Amino acid sequence: MNTSLPMIMGVAGLFVALLVYKMVLRYPAGEGKVAEIGEKIHRGAMVFMRREYGYLAIFVAVVALLIFISDLGAKTMLAFLVGALCSGVAGYIGMYAATHANVRTTTAAARDGAESALAVAFFGGSVMGLCVAAMGLLGIGFLYLVFGGDPQTAHVIHGFGMGASSVALFSRVGGGIFTKSADVGADLVGKVEAGIPEDDPRNPGVIADNVGDNVGDVAGMGSDIFESYCGSIIATIAIATTLPPAMFSLLGAQEVLMFLPLAMASVGLVCAILGIGLVKMNTARSPELALRIGTIGTTVLFMAASYFVIRYLGVSANVWGSVAVGAVGGIGIGLITEYYTGGKPVRSIAKSGETGPATVMISGLAVGMESVVVPLLIIAAIILVSSHLTGLYGVGIAAVGMLATVGITMAIDAYGPVADNAGGIAEMSGMGNEVREITDSLDELGNTTAAIGKGFAIGAAALAALAIISAFIETVSHLDPGFSLELSDPKVLAGMFLGGIFPFLVSSITMNAVGSAAFEMIHEIRRQFREIPGLMEGTADPDSDRCVDIATRAALKRMVLPGVLAVAAPAVVGFGLGATALGGMLGGALLGCVLMALTMANAGGAWDNAKKYIEKGNLGGKGSDVHAAAVVGDTVGDPFKDTSGPSMNILINVMAIVSLVIAPLL
Amino acid sequence: MNTSLPMIMGVAGLFVALLVYKMVLRYPAGEGKVAEIGEKIHRGAMVFMRREYGYLAIFVAVVALLIFISDLGAKTMLAFLVGALCSGVAGYIGMYAATHANVRTTTAAARDGAESALAVAFFGGSVMGLCVAAMGLLGIGFLYLVFGGDPQTAHVIHGFGMGASSVALFSRVGGGIFTKSADVGADLVGKVEAGIPEDDPRNPGVIADNVGDNVGDVAGMGSDIFESYCGSIIATIAIATTLPPAMFSLLGAQEVLMFLPLAMASVGLVCAILGIGLVKMNTARSPELALRIGTIGTTVLFMAASYFVIRYLGVSANVWGSVAVGAVGGIGIGLITEYYTGGKPVRSIAKSGETGPATVMISGLAVGMESVVVPLLIIAAIILVSSHLTGLYGVGIAAVGMLATVGITMAIDAYGPVADNAGGIAEMSGMGNEVREITDSLDELGNTTAAIGKGFAIGAAALAALAIISAFIETVSHLDPGFSLELSDPKVLAGMFLGGIFPFLVSSITMNAVGSAAFEMIHEIRRQFREIPGLMEGTADPDSDRCVDIATRAALKRMVLPGVLAVAAPAVVGFGLGATALGGMLGGALLGCVLMALTMANAGGAWDNAKKYIEKGNLGGKGSDVHAAAVVGDTVGDPFKDTSGPSMNILINVMAIVSLVIAPLL
Repeated sequence: MNTSLPMIMGVAGLFVALLVYKMVLRYPAGEGKVAEIGEKIHRGAMVFMRREYGYLAIFVAVVALLIFISDLGAKTMLAFLVGALCSGVAGYIGMYAATHANVRTTTAAARDGAESALAVAFFGGSVMGLCVAAMGLLGIGFLYLVFGGDPQTAHVIHGFGMGASSVALFSRVGGGIFTKSADVGADLVGKVEAGIPEDDPRNPGVIADNVGDNVGDVAGMGSDIFESYCGSIIATIAIATTLPPAMFSLLGAQEVLMFLPLAMASVGLVCAILGIGLVKMNTARSPELALRIGTIGTTVLFMAASYFVIRYLGVSANVWGSVAVGAVGGIGIGLITEYYTGGKPVRSIAKSGETGPATVMISGLAVGMESVVVPLLIIAAIILVSSHLTGLYGVGIAAVGMLATVGITMAIDAYGPVADNAGGIAEMSGMGNEVREITDSLDELGNTTAAIGKGFAIGAAALAALAIISAFIETVSHLDPGFSLELSDPKVLAGMFLGGIFPFLVSSITMNAVGSAAFEMIHEIRRQFREIPGLMEGTADPDSDRCVDIATRAALKRMVLPGVLAVAAPAVVGFGLGATALGGMLGGALLGCVLMALTMANAGGAWDNAKKYIEKGNLGGKGSDVHAAAVVGDTVGDPFKDTSGPSMNILINVMAIVSLVIAPLL
Repeated sequence: MNTSLPMIMGVAGLFVALLVYKMVLRYPAGEGKVAEIGEKIHRGAMVFMRREYGYLAIFVAVVALLIFISDLGAKTMLAFLVGALCSGVAGYIGMYAATHANVRTTTAAARDGAESALAVAFFGGSVMGLCVAAMGLLGIGFLYLVFGGDPQTAHVIHGFGMGASSVALFSRVGGGIFTKSADVGADLVGKVEAGIPEDDPRNPGVIADNVGDNVGDVAGMGSDIFESYCGSIIATIAIATTLPPAMFSLLGAQEVLMFLPLAMASVGLVCAILGIGLVKMNTARSPELALRIGTIGTTVLFMAASYFVIRYLGVSANVWGSVAVGAVGGIGIGLITEYYTGGKPVRSIAKSGETGPATVMISGLAVGMESVVVPLLIIAAIILVSSHLTGLYGVGIAAVGMLATVGITMAIDAYGPVADNAGGIAEMSGMGNEVREITDSLDELGNTTAAIGKGFAIGAAALAALAIISAFIETVSHLDPGFSLELSDPKVLAGMFLGGIFPFLVSSITMNAVGSAAFEMIHEIRRQFREIPGLMEGTADPDSDRCVDIATRAALKRMVLPGVLAVAAPAVVGFGLGATALGGMLGGALLGCVLMALTMANAGGAWDNAKKYIEKGNLGGKGSDVHAAAVVGDTVGDPFKDTSGPSMNILINVMAIVSLVIAPLL
């Protein structure tokens, strides 16, 4: 057992990411208008990232200082900084690559056709996927090498998770507010008021809209998955350090069980690289098939490889069972998400548009609420089966099993916004219909994979949070053997009710944030149409930097309150009411977050696709009353699925990891 | 301590209800068209009740048989039947009186003016309020007399709660589907398509709409409050039977603590009767003030009187503290509901209508989500304070404290639909503007009181369910001392996730039920307008019976699935996965139900009032685009606030009480 292997794998992963990035760059970026627009999007995204990281640096510095002066000390502070840095670097590189891939996808579509375009877009997303997995392994692997060997110091690693989650919180919430305020603003003034097509270059908001796809769906999603990925690994290490000795004879030696999540993640990274190759090999067949083969193939490979590694390390086959349950469960949640955002429910929402927007809302909300049933059954089954096989350790390692192949899941996920951007660039630069058709078909596929990715992200976040909460409970119990979280304890109950508040409050705040940021955007776009002479005629350029700036400022301003709430709440309740109430609060918040995340993501996705279904000519097609009704659903769905819904994943993980970090102080 | 006193109080309460009913009848029912319409509504409501009770009888018989052949035996079966009967009788009498009071309110408004009209409407609602309190006391008092004296047989009384909850489940869900399918159907065809005013007698659906107000808002609400009321009393008795002996020296003798919830309810009934008198005395001043004095006055009276009774019975003053916390908390939740459905949030939703229906939806949903914050803080505070004062017994008796004055709360609540009906009758019978103005002002007041009543009902249901769940945990622990509900136990966690499914699934089912029932109604009303010659011209009568029949059949058909789910789920999980998983499930379901109930009720109420705010001439008034956007919000809000939201209260109570009943079998 070579404990430096995860770090080495991390470095190797980054090297592969670099190779893939070089492959992206080998495609031409295009010239003239195309290159110019691509550059604008790239620059806008980078400006946002740098300003966001400026805010983040302050926040990270303050929290680092608090950690330092608390009893947690310098080592945890160091881990916290490493975690924040790794998350930041992964997001930055991934987005850097994605905003170079989008314009190359457009050019490839124009020059070589669909196969090449798919390859560039997918490679662009793969850089993000590989970076997430590699930076996680590198960072945690490094800390494990320094502190992890000894169960007494392993808790230092929790700081890494907190760092990753803090960055994720701001990236996800900030990115979510940015993307939707730009999207809603650009659409309302452009499509509805000015009557020009989506992504028309005359619209001052379209660059911001395309930037938003990157900062929200690439960087935001990446940091989300990154923190779930790291959280599950860290939680499993934590659980392994607190296991009762009897478990070691059943499952395997303690140091092996502590190391196992890193080993699984390493195996997963190798499989993901192979999976990326699998996709490339199949691009000549149908794009959809290629991506499907990539996902399923990687999981099958991973399940086989992990069995041999687990047995090789002398660990019980039951542990493999838990890993496998997690891996299969992740795919299951993804597929059910695909059904609710693409199957019969979407057509029934579209049909309900015949009686107006109110029935679109009712049926969409009903679909969203119904969509929680199977994922929650799957989560409950994962908990029961994995813990039956291997106790509480099983819940942690199942989460790792679900997230180990994150390299490919995230790659496919990030492929979506790259393809979406490529379409936008084609439209803005006035390319022909054939190019648009190729990018549209890639984009449509991206919507499906994004839906699966979202479902997967929610399931993974839930399981990771559960693992972290379990680690929190075990850590507190370890330090205070009398600790108990009885559901009949009034403190646990009261905590549970307090915890239930947060998902609803944060959803409310983020929805309002999108609303008011979009309002500012609408104002600015209207002003430009009014005040810039020749803009409507296409003889003058819009001031798109200004719109990027507005979205940036709005996002940065409004991400603060939810961020502070998430970090402060566990500390306030933990120090104010004690670890018992905090435990109850985490339980309530976890349940609330998972329910709200699923409802909002799936209702939003279903509304979006119901609108697209009508736009394909069904039920009267574009411009009909049914279409107008569906647009209302889609507009409500935007903050649902891209802002409030995704922030639930981070919210619960931040609350859980902060609790785990402060556990020794309680 | 005279344990037959509650029964005597129950009989006395019924006697007062009879007197109040006689006072209603002393007002003339009107003649001609008015009397005819009143009779139609009355008959429609009674037909629905009888058919619903037919279904219920089958369900009750099956469950009674299951109880009988299980180990629970004949006594629990008897209690179950008594509970179902008491709930049914209370609902029947209350609605009988309400559908006689509505037409008399119209006539009183026409003959004597606002003061008389308020008196009749309020007295009409008071019959329901008094019946709920009196039937509860009578039924539980009777069972307590027979089985309650002995802690060994007291568990038989749980059957009463299950009977009451079963009836409530069907009344609330069935009534909710009835009322909203009729409302949405009649409005869409009448107001939107045919362009005739609301409550126009030519519309075939308006009688069904008015019947719906009674079966949903009077009978449904009554059975909802009834089961919370009885549930809190029964749970507190159950907790008292399982208290550790050490508590008795601290709080008071066991038999006194067991009897105390009935004593508090008796005191509450007396105070409620005095409160009804208070309202009557103040009707000459402003109607709003009269109702406010009634509510607050009753609570103050109750808090004073309960102190003396508690001290007289030799119980610790701490117990009184818990009672007081519950009573004050109930008012607090009511007031915060009033803010969210009547204050600044309503105006901001209305304003968001300027940018169309999508922003109305977003801001309304955000308001609903935000509205959970304070009520959940209050519930958490009640749990912490009451249990700090008196342990788990405190949670139960706090719930009793909140619900003891149910006579007046329910009276004010039922007043709303009576006033609403009175307005409808005035419109349908073509009365003058002055009469409409009086009934409109009474109706508006009713909307405010209804909002407070809804908030109160949710808080009360949550606390009652919590008490029942506590009783469940104590009962299982009592029988199996090794029983524990650790949040870190995978079974508890898995149960919690399973429990979270139900509020979302049932909300989804009931929302869809309203949608499809309204669709049938729309179809029928369109058919009548098309096929009945002279209907539009007012020379022919619509076939309103047919519409009542459609709403009735739809409601009865679609209430079955949620009902069966609620009753079967605890049994399936309890016997399948054990009491641990069931405990977790109850926790998850409780949290989910409270969150969804608050969000849906308050979003719905806020949308409704935002529309009314615009209709008063603000932001462009009736017929403007802003108004059209607000109507979309109101239509979505209808099933939110009157069907899905309220069914959450019952759902969690049914699940809890079924668990409590089957606890000895697990």
